[in-house]
Amino acid sequence: MKPPANWTRKHLIGLEDLSLEEIDAVHETARSFRQTLGRSVKKLPSLRGKTIVNLFMEPSTRTRLAFELAAKRLSADVISIIGQASSLTKGETLKDTARNVEALNADMIVLRHASAGSPLYLSKVVEVPIVSAGDGAHEHPTQGLLDSFTLRDRLGDLTGKKITILGDILFSRVARSNVFALTKLGAQVTLAGPATLVPHDFATLGVEVSHDLRAALADADAVMLLRIQHERQSQSSTHFPSLGEYTSMFGLNERRASWLKPEAIIMHPGPVNRGVELDSALADSKRSVILDQVTNGLAIRMAVLYLCGVTADLEKKEEGG
Amino acid sequence: MKPPANWTRKHLIGLEDLSLEEIDAVHETARSFRQTLGRSVKKLPSLRGKTIVNLFMEPSTRTRLAFELAAKRLSADVISIIGQASSLTKGETLKDTARNVEALNADMIVLRHASAGSPLYLSKVVEVPIVSAGDGAHEHPTQGLLDSFTLRDRLGDLTGKKITILGDILFSRVARSNVFALTKLGAQVTLAGPATLVPHDFATLGVEVSHDLRAALADADAVMLLRIQHERQSQSSTHFPSLGEYTSMFGLNERRASWLKPEAIIMHPGPVNRGVELDSALADSKRSVILDQVTNGLAIRMAVLYLCGVTADLEKKEEGG
Amino acid sequence: MKPPANWTRKHLIGLEDLSLEEIDAVHETARSFRQTLGRSVKKLPSLRGKTIVNLFMEPSTRTRLAFELAAKRLSADVISIIGQASSLTKGETLKDTARNVEALNADMIVLRHASAGSPLYLSKVVEVPIVSAGDGAHEHPTQGLLDSFTLRDRLGDLTGKKITILGDILFSRVARSNVFALTKLGAQVTLAGPATLVPHDFATLGVEVSHDLRAALADADAVMLLRIQHERQSQSSTHFPSLGEYTSMFGLNERRASWLKPEAIIMHPGPVNRGVELDSALADSKRSVILDQVTNGLAIRMAVLYLCGVTADLEKKEEGG
Repeated sequence: MKPPANWTRKHLIGLEDLSLEEIDAVHETARSFRQTLGRSVKKLPSLRGKTIVNLFMEPSTRTRLAFELAAKRLSADVISIIGQASSLTKGETLKDTARNVEALNADMIVLRHASAGSPLYLSKVVEVPIVSAGDGAHEHPTQGLLDSFTLRDRLGDLTGKKITILGDILFSRVARSNVFALTKLGAQVTLAGPATLVPHDFATLGVEVSHDLRAALADADAVMLLRIQHERQSQSSTHFPSLGEYTSMFGLNERRASWLKPEAIIMHPGPVNRGVELDSALADSKRSVILDQVTNGLAIRMAVLYLCGVTADLEKKEEGG
Repeated sequence: MKPPANWTRKHLIGLEDLSLEEIDAVHETARSFRQTLGRSVKKLPSLRGKTIVNLFMEPSTRTRLAFELAAKRLSADVISIIGQASSLTKGETLKDTARNVEALNADMIVLRHASAGSPLYLSKVVEVPIVSAGDGAHEHPTQGLLDSFTLRDRLGDLTGKKITILGDILFSRVARSNVFALTKLGAQVTLAGPATLVPHDFATLGVEVSHDLRAALADADAVMLLRIQHERQSQSSTHFPSLGEYTSMFGLNERRASWLKPEAIIMHPGPVNRGVELDSALADSKRSVILDQVTNGLAIRMAVLYLCGVTADLEKKEEGG
Repeated sequence: MKPPANWTRKHLIGLEDLSLEEIDAVHETARSFRQTLGRSVKKLPSLRGKTIVNLFMEPSTRTRLAFELAAKRLSADVISIIGQASSLTKGETLKDTARNVEALNADMIVLRHASAGSPLYLSKVVEVPIVSAGDGAHEHPTQGLLDSFTLRDRLGDLTGKKITILGDILFSRVARSNVFALTKLGAQVTLAGPATLVPHDFATLGVEVSHDLRAALADADAVMLLRIQHERQSQSSTHFPSLGEYTSMFGLNERRASWLKPEAIIMHPGPVNRGVELDSALADSKRSVILDQVTNGLAIRMAVLYLCGVTADLEKKEEGG
């Protein structure tokens, strides 16, 4: 399989910089990889002999698992380093850690880090491709790619489609990456939730901000819920009074779901807090595409690893030749 | 290699439900896999391209290692998720975790869980095969299969053979799985130990209960020791007064081993507390088959993964065709 | 690829016992493996079907990662067991753990352990090859092999070359392994640092001991820094008064580096405490070969796994035939 002509990046840092054509290239590649998932022999030889290092300086079993499985499906070797348990990082700078991994002949680094900007920084100090698996409150590009992929799959062309993102948006890299992807794809995005979690400044991103849940749901073609971070709530009570308060005001339950158009779909990046931001029955209903998002996430990570890996190889050959 | 005709399960939940023919099928398959272990090129292509996820919500390096090695020997990819360190499970139900793993295109889940009944429950809510690696005080089916396999290997036909299981039987899933397997295979099982750890109710399982160690050892063809759980002892002193007390009353030492028939063998699922339930010299003696159990455990896990995996594949093909 | 005729060991315990010819054999093998690292398809079939178990009873992400990657490059399967988190080892002796790993059909054990002598001990109680990845204050043989490999690479024949090892030498297995390798290769080794960390007894190893930093640097062809162990410092203040004190007296900075010959190189086993034992700018300067050491470390581990693995195979065949 040849990479699409309009993909020329070896790093994936965020979706803000990506063109519509580049998003198309990832989606197109993911679509063809997804077809291979149902086969009885599923492995593709695309990255055989390559070594991918997952450098997860912030824990995330879910995203790491998806990247590990994606790498294995492409026949790459994959090793995961979990930052906090790691003596690799003892007293060592992130740059030194990454350059060590590079010196160990890794072909690609997937980086998860609590600090916004770390993937961009690393991409400037090492030669190997850097794929962001989420950085602080900045971006979570593969999540944005898989969500928009799922939406195109379900709704077709997204031009003029109305997508409501609901919940704890303030520091959400998932929301940010989705806003970048969805607006490029022509969708009209509404950010909804309590005023403390969805400040009006977000309107500068070219989206609507709404604190009226009924209005935000009424004309939506899809509603994307974000996970309420229990952790944040316990540390500071300034964002919303309590979990129960959030659920009673903004949790998506049967009654509120009835405000949606009959064909509107429900999305969630997982893991779902059943009964908090989303009612349990709704999570399992026909409206829910949550498990499709998971499967699509595998195909998207395969596509990203493949595209960045192949581009890095071509670049190396040109330098060599 | 074709799976034996009398194996039609894709899940392995426990041995209570297994027929004699099904136990035979696992043992027969394990025997042929064991022959491949000595080869210089040991990998078999049986599960090439499959992904097995070890979902260990209760830690167990030993069992996990055996399952990982078994999967690799069959050329499968294997990823282990250790529950307690895992953000996969944060606020997420077991069902959601398993369905996520399934949506990530895993072909099989090996589940270890502290709650009895979780493998059965999962087998009803997901499509992929569930293999139990031990659930609470319920069953540890692969341990029962490997112990009975080792016994048949050493003693031949088990009909009428006397097997004494000695130790902390009260909450032992190992004891329960062994009782189910061994009674089906025609053996006479005696459960022995202090009355607090071996209540008389166990007699309802079709076994003898004995608190007289000498009698329980005298006519045994094999004695299977169970590990004394230090952990339990420290939390509650109601089951036996102290570790030293247990050792002095029921620990298997040279003097007590002399009560055994000369050809009787000694088994232990490991890890051995040397000097507690078993004297160190006996653990290393010719009577001991402890390391054979470990090697047989690898062959048994290969057999179980293979049989359940192949059955799931056949089922899928039939649905497809 | 055939193993060099002068390599007949299946265990690698330390460099004290190795002959010059054996060190040459490892270096020669590593050199040919290093050439394969730049290839686009990097995996070699040398250990296909073999299983290597990393038994790390003392944590070390860095060394473990290098061994894992080396094993994968040789097409072996590799499983790492991290001791302290491991129920494998609960109440179990090291010997029992290793014999269990062996019974699980592992082909090689890479052992890291806090107790000096454990690799030697294990090599006497199991059949599988034992490769030491560092044992207490005894030896870290692959580190000594990769450092001497890097030195030969840069300086050519080491006969008469002056190598200064600077820092916390008292309990350093890295220093010990380097002393054994470098003196066999004909180099003149100077151990330098504060008197409390570099006692005069070390002179019995055939090296010079110096507490005069300027003199120790002046005629060196290479200076090898050791990592200052923060941990030790915090537990006991008897070895040096404070970290700042160490840095001000013995830290390698631009001014002290000017005492070196212009072509002298700087080495460090990593991870570097920038600004403590080594100035940040020097770590990134042209003098520094720190990242070469990392890459060479991969090639050296491939060579050691390959040589010990192939020797064990030949031994088995001879026993069989």
